[in-house]
Amino acid sequence: MPQPLHHVVIIGGGFGGLAAARALRDAPIRVTLVDKRNFHLFQPLLYQVATGLLCPSEVTSPLRHVLKNQENATVLLGEATDIDVEEKKVILADGELGYDTLVIAAGMVNHYHGHEEWEQWAPGLKTIEDTGRIRQRIFSAFEIAEREPDPALRREWLTFVVIGSGATGIELSGMIGEIAKNTLRGEFRSIFPEESRVLLVDAAERILPSYPSGLSMLAEKSLTALGVETATSARVVEVNERGVVLEKPEGRSVIRARTVVWASGVAGSPLGGIIAGKTGTVLDRAGRVAVAPDLTIPGHPEIFVIGDLASCPGKDGSPLPGLAPVATQQGRFAAKSIRSRLEGRPAPSRFHYFDKGTMAVIGRGAAVADIGRWHFGGRFAWFLWLFIHLLLLIQFQNRLIVLIRWAFQYFSYNRGARNLMLRGTLKLPITRPGENARDGQ
Amino acid sequence: MPQPLHHVVIIGGGFGGLAAARALRDAPIRVTLVDKRNFHLFQPLLYQVATGLLCPSEVTSPLRHVLKNQENATVLLGEATDIDVEEKKVILADGELGYDTLVIAAGMVNHYHGHEEWEQWAPGLKTIEDTGRIRQRIFSAFEIAEREPDPALRREWLTFVVIGSGATGIELSGMIGEIAKNTLRGEFRSIFPEESRVLLVDAAERILPSYPSGLSMLAEKSLTALGVETATSARVVEVNERGVVLEKPEGRSVIRARTVVWASGVAGSPLGGIIAGKTGTVLDRAGRVAVAPDLTIPGHPEIFVIGDLASCPGKDGSPLPGLAPVATQQGRFAAKSIRSRLEGRPAPSRFHYFDKGTMAVIGRGAAVADIGRWHFGGRFAWFLWLFIHLLLLIQFQNRLIVLIRWAFQYFSYNRGARNLMLRGTLKLPITRPGENARDGQ
Repeated sequence: MPQPLHHVVIIGGGFGGLAAARALRDAPIRVTLVDKRNFHLFQPLLYQVATGLLCPSEVTSPLRHVLKNQENATVLLGEATDIDVEEKKVILADGELGYDTLVIAAGMVNHYHGHEEWEQWAPGLKTIEDTGRIRQRIFSAFEIAEREPDPALRREWLTFVVIGSGATGIELSGMIGEIAKNTLRGEFRSIFPEESRVLLVDAAERILPSYPSGLSMLAEKSLTALGVETATSARVVEVNERGVVLEKPEGRSVIRARTVVWASGVAGSPLGGIIAGKTGTVLDRAGRVAVAPDLTIPGHPEIFVIGDLASCPGKDGSPLPGLAPVATQQGRFAAKSIRSRLEGRPAPSRFHYFDKGTMAVIGRGAAVADIGRWHFGGRFAWFLWLFIHLLLLIQFQNRLIVLIRWAFQYFSYNRGARNLMLRGTLKLPITRPGENARDGQ
Repeated sequence: MPQPLHHVVIIGGGFGGLAAARALRDAPIRVTLVDKRNFHLFQPLLYQVATGLLCPSEVTSPLRHVLKNQENATVLLGEATDIDVEEKKVILADGELGYDTLVIAAGMVNHYHGHEEWEQWAPGLKTIEDTGRIRQRIFSAFEIAEREPDPALRREWLTFVVIGSGATGIELSGMIGEIAKNTLRGEFRSIFPEESRVLLVDAAERILPSYPSGLSMLAEKSLTALGVETATSARVVEVNERGVVLEKPEGRSVIRARTVVWASGVAGSPLGGIIAGKTGTVLDRAGRVAVAPDLTIPGHPEIFVIGDLASCPGKDGSPLPGLAPVATQQGRFAAKSIRSRLEGRPAPSRFHYFDKGTMAVIGRGAAVADIGRWHFGGRFAWFLWLFIHLLLLIQFQNRLIVLIRWAFQYFSYNRGARNLMLRGTLKLPITRPGENARDGQ
């Protein structure tokens, strides 16, 4: 039978898209959520998967399961490659899909500022596959160092560089510091993991540039305690197999490191560029779509862009940051607008972000929080972070399991999810086991 | 300084190798455990990873962590490719390693009885990578069916064949039955997962051929309850992209199925063949090394072969089955022999397996147990299975998490570890979403 119902197509099952879909529950419409993944990803904990604390399924929830009982919602596993704004159709890699209202929540992808060739040496952290790559590199590095007889090369394998000191960057470097200092201590016979060097690099003058400067100092102190060095005002001009080249005010310096992680930049999904081209909308430097105050595309009230992909000015006029709460609130806002229109009521004309604050965790008992007037760090901030993130985890099952993993890691320093895959990525140097750094001790 | 200590090299960190290493703790010797993986794998639960109930890190424990506090043990991540029995050296892919005593516990690999080309269509279940492949196929099949407009093809995608009805086979088919019947029920909009066909195939006259026939009947009943069909006295003569061809007494039959899993055969690791060639020892049909009653290789008291790779006659004369308890007891036996020799005491001359019984789990509240005189099934057997396997799980952390996952799955039917990777394995058919089986209902 023909479908008389208003059809809302949502591209992307992240925080924004999922919030929109759920907020349309019970509305007299048809909702189709399109995602190329079959799961919602809890991105704020991605760095814990990349560092072997959690396993992928603990930060993912099957989209079909989340929307199972929402009668009016269909989950479609597919990749949106183009949008026909005239015909109101989403073009999929393997089909097409007509819409009455379109909500684009496609998020961001890793971005290397024109140095895409760096990705092979410095993987970014946006997807579950990324976590596998990064985890493989971090833990393999120690294995290779254990087998490496040449002290200079061993040093390279025991040097870790994290590029970019936003929340992800400090969280990653802090975790790597903990792995070297605590998790692996005593597990090797030739190397001392705690002698590893972990370097956090940023072009800005201070780490956590988007946070109040007081918190940058707090974060720096906590990182130092974990043995993480920070290099600020340091621009990365080269990344290769052997390490990175930094440009600092005092000149260039070469850091020999076999493990480099990219936490320095993301750009809007290609869909942003596509829709901008089709509608003549502006893209900002990060490839985000400049939306109207009501999150629609100027001249296209039937197309919403929400979440990280939307460039939407906040109170102070600067675009809102790419955070889960922003995306979630925008998703609910878009759903509210759609409902209002269908009911013939005036749709809200302007999205207002209610800022509950931002936090970043650094390591054991150390985090920084920027909540309204309050800027604080230390153990309390850390517990607050734990508590909030547990509550936010989508599946109740995951909450419990993650809590247990955190508790175990806190008390035992161990990390359960360290299993290396045989992907040929682990090339051990030719050595005669037995000849090693600590022999004769 | 030169190492005056007796050097025991153990190849393989499975149940046998790890038991041997641990039983040598505090002995005045040097132990090197060589494994190409950095983790011990709890194989008995592998099928639960393959079916999305557990995630890989929950059935693995980092070898370095397990042996962290055993001063005399070194874990060496490397692959043994050859053995020089004259020079007493293990040749690694990337070095070599001298030994005084060698314990080979290299286990088994998937075996296709001369039809290795079947592996691409019917992956086996021996490694963590295997679980990824199988999980990907099972859950992708439902996604593809959801998008497939052709009813015949949809049927193929919703047909699952498990080849081999040993413990692994019935456990896998039971799990797939549960996924179709319970886990995914209500999560799709075009297909009814509960209408899937799950077929368990075996050339023997009854499933679980190695168990008492009473238990085969019990198992069959439980499987039927889960909607799993069984085809016995059915020999697989062909496996390809579209399915399998069975040869039965009444003739050939073609089963169109897009997901086929191989649980029908394993063979000794290539190292078995190598050591047999070097020492003139006999290999049995399954490629296992025929060892002396004391688990050494005839003429080579310094070389032990233990675990699945050893063909060691049991009480009834037939070789002991490839089970974790056999491997564990053999590992301890080998360690005891090595200690006795070093202390100048006579080494035990004959390994005796203490059979605590065997169990196989079929599904929710259904398992079969063959314990000495007692053969029983049902809920009690299932609880017993749960309890025993929880106790056996190596890391305490994993025990708790696995218990939680089991509890959640039991009450919610959900499976947390379903996230599909973007490995290109998921090729969706070209369709116009919207045209689908249940439209118009």
